[in-house]
Amino acid sequence: MGTTAQIGVTGLAVMGRNLARNFARNGYTVAVHNRTVARTRALIEEFGGEGDFVAAETAEEFVAALERPRRLVVMVKAGEPTDAVIAEFAPLLEPGDMIVDGGNAHFADTRRRERELRERGVHFVGTGVSGGEEGALHGPSIMPGGSAESYESLGPMLERISAKADDGAPCVTHVGPDGAGHFVKMVHNGIEYADMQLIGEAYQLLRDVAGYTPARIADVFRRWNTGRLDSYLIEITAEVLSHVDAATGKPFVDVVLDRAEQKGTGRWTVQIALDLGVPVSGIAEAVFARSLSGHADLRSAARGLPGPTPRTLPEAEAAAFADRVEQALYASKIVSYTQGFHQIAAASAEYDWGVDAGAVARIWRGGCIIRAAFLDRITAAYEADPGLVSLLSDRDFADEIGAAQDDWRAVLAAATTQGVPTPGFAAALAYYDGLRTDRSPAALIQGQRDYFGAHTYRRTDGEGTFHTLWGGDRSEVEA
Amino acid sequence: MGTTAQIGVTGLAVMGRNLARNFARNGYTVAVHNRTVARTRALIEEFGGEGDFVAAETAEEFVAALERPRRLVVMVKAGEPTDAVIAEFAPLLEPGDMIVDGGNAHFADTRRRERELRERGVHFVGTGVSGGEEGALHGPSIMPGGSAESYESLGPMLERISAKADDGAPCVTHVGPDGAGHFVKMVHNGIEYADMQLIGEAYQLLRDVAGYTPARIADVFRRWNTGRLDSYLIEITAEVLSHVDAATGKPFVDVVLDRAEQKGTGRWTVQIALDLGVPVSGIAEAVFARSLSGHADLRSAARGLPGPTPRTLPEAEAAAFADRVEQALYASKIVSYTQGFHQIAAASAEYDWGVDAGAVARIWRGGCIIRAAFLDRITAAYEADPGLVSLLSDRDFADEIGAAQDDWRAVLAAATTQGVPTPGFAAALAYYDGLRTDRSPAALIQGQRDYFGAHTYRRTDGEGTFHTLWGGDRSEVEA
Repeated sequence: MGTTAQIGVTGLAVMGRNLARNFARNGYTVAVHNRTVARTRALIEEFGGEGDFVAAETAEEFVAALERPRRLVVMVKAGEPTDAVIAEFAPLLEPGDMIVDGGNAHFADTRRRERELRERGVHFVGTGVSGGEEGALHGPSIMPGGSAESYESLGPMLERISAKADDGAPCVTHVGPDGAGHFVKMVHNGIEYADMQLIGEAYQLLRDVAGYTPARIADVFRRWNTGRLDSYLIEITAEVLSHVDAATGKPFVDVVLDRAEQKGTGRWTVQIALDLGVPVSGIAEAVFARSLSGHADLRSAARGLPGPTPRTLPEAEAAAFADRVEQALYASKIVSYTQGFHQIAAASAEYDWGVDAGAVARIWRGGCIIRAAFLDRITAAYEADPGLVSLLSDRDFADEIGAAQDDWRAVLAAATTQGVPTPGFAAALAYYDGLRTDRSPAALIQGQRDYFGAHTYRRTDGEGTFHTLWGGDRSEVEA
Repeated sequence: MGTTAQIGVTGLAVMGRNLARNFARNGYTVAVHNRTVARTRALIEEFGGEGDFVAAETAEEFVAALERPRRLVVMVKAGEPTDAVIAEFAPLLEPGDMIVDGGNAHFADTRRRERELRERGVHFVGTGVSGGEEGALHGPSIMPGGSAESYESLGPMLERISAKADDGAPCVTHVGPDGAGHFVKMVHNGIEYADMQLIGEAYQLLRDVAGYTPARIADVFRRWNTGRLDSYLIEITAEVLSHVDAATGKPFVDVVLDRAEQKGTGRWTVQIALDLGVPVSGIAEAVFARSLSGHADLRSAARGLPGPTPRTLPEAEAAAFADRVEQALYASKIVSYTQGFHQIAAASAEYDWGVDAGAVARIWRGGCIIRAAFLDRITAAYEADPGLVSLLSDRDFADEIGAAQDDWRAVLAAATTQGVPTPGFAAALAYYDGLRTDRSPAALIQGQRDYFGAHTYRRTDGEGTFHTLWGGDRSEVEA
């Protein structure tokens, strides 16, 4: 076996196998390796005809099969398995070689691994890969971090195997150094949670207030999918809602147990946003709504709690209501993305990553779960003003949300009055109104904190930090 | 210097100093120690007459001054300083001795320290102390974790120095083993964040919609403080709102910069709730609202975003609106406490702490920031049913929230329509409606997840896990 492979993939579960096949189908010679050799053999047997594979049975064989500098893609579970694979391969590598981690690692782990391997001269490239099994095979959205030098070597290959947006641009860019790629992938997932929650709330309103059947709601989503909400998630929502359960003849959505599950990246997004001091209330409410749905004990104990039963609108008013829901969904979506991109900007500043937010939006246009026409708009906003503080300060988004807001407020008021839970819509509107408010009750909170804990406050009319002697004569002292 | 002190305090910044004085004023002989000796001397000089102090200049002297088994209270900054003090004292201690950490430690650190010291036979007692400087001196609410054995020794002393509730009961109980005390103190702080946020929203509504001045709002809070909202935070809110700034003659709340600060326990509460899968949306919105208020750049970029200007109600309607705000505030408060107590129950189950939720509510009735008449109601709910799944399943709370909800919804609808940000009220209502809903859009989310990621779903009508072949003939297979 010679040194012939341009890239190697170790870890041949479905994601790794499909990524290896994607490289091979694009003309690269791919070394493949797995801890249990059976999987490697199965890949060759089933898909060996798709391209040039080099099957390696041991780590040494695998490394020996790779051209230098070596490009080694690790597709194993995040956490300890990743560390174990790195520990196995690192001693076999030479300065200039690259390890690409394509799993869903926590960005702090990626930062640590990058630092440790940098000492050996090995590039560690934490890389977000979005699009699931199908994306891995046919073209994912790829978010590599790591050094600029590693991207020079890897970039052209990743561009080949990546999804292409409608304008033909590959859905990959060098996001930034060390953990930037995994960070951005995590926020992608957080935004995906928020998108799904907002869609769920829109569905529930169309069901309970407009009185539509799932099939009819599917038609509404299909129509929305021809407009500014055009996106993969809206498209598949229509597919799910129009599906009929064969066993019962009922709408599929009515036979699925209504307890949402989650794997952790949404939770990470919120936890890390809290560390960064970035309000991501839309993502948080999406994560909480999933948890809440899963607490069967609380839900059954709450059965019978008093509340209104939604009044179904007369047919003549239902269509207009559905249009208002579209406005509410779109406005809330702008807020979710505003929060997600704020989080990316905050991390980029904190870790000095220099992330190009417009480029991030661009590589999410294809291959990944949140792919949407909408992302072009975000790219345009950042291209018009690379220093944009917030998506909401972009003129076009501000105009759109301005035009949507009467309907947004009307839909939320209806949901509030009629007892349809809309935590995502509500959090988004509260963020919007909280941002634009001239005076926030935070002033009162600072007063309370100074009262009970002498935590001090600043004034609107000058510099300095002050404390009021609340327990004394209530005079003000400089702190 | 003989072995005379019943308790020792090391770390004599204001909290440690006041706690030491509290012990001395209650008749205990207190050894005092500080890294820089000047602080120890200052304490003796200023307050030595208040009781029996033994000033120790070195760690060895300090330890030698303590009766056996030694009771050593550490009052230093959370994090590394705490570890440094433990490392200094642990070698000087003997099996059976106790280290009480009275700082605001992260409960995971407390668990680690307890485990490490247990190996030496030393009891590590992570202890929440609430009430600030004044509480430390005159009687705090005390939340000790650690072993039952250590509480036998420490309990009587802590009961002496603790706050007493109106019925005379000391505000201290053995919360549970290892990190239980610090955990419960953290949730206390998270609930405090939520309480303050809800009060802030009520204030803003009274200001913008009822059109009241701060002085008049202070009167409203004073009135509320004679009813079911009777609490320390409502009381001091009235004090802050009625205060007039001497320099300008304006209401104090109008000259305070409206950027709220925070120290971290609110953030921890939310981060850990996410790990436990507990929705604490009210606390999360409170933390986010503080962050949002502090992002001056985003706020100034958002100036001019379109939105309604609140219409002030005619005087004749304002009083009725204020009453509705009280209902909304009370209902939202019930939800905050429901979420906080759910988090405590979840951690107690996860770590096998056996926390008595009713006892926790009981020891918060005095000394701490969230002390309130309301807490008696929570204790009563858990005494009536120690296995209570959720505060909302208590009959009395359910009745009250049932009676409040029309007003709650009306207030929120008004805030939504008029552009007054109410993230806390809204999150609380969405939680309430989310819990009581028969069918959640989580079913749709499970369908979406199965569609794009083959994540599978369960059915309402039987056991098992299923996957629909979305890309194929859409038949259902067992997964």
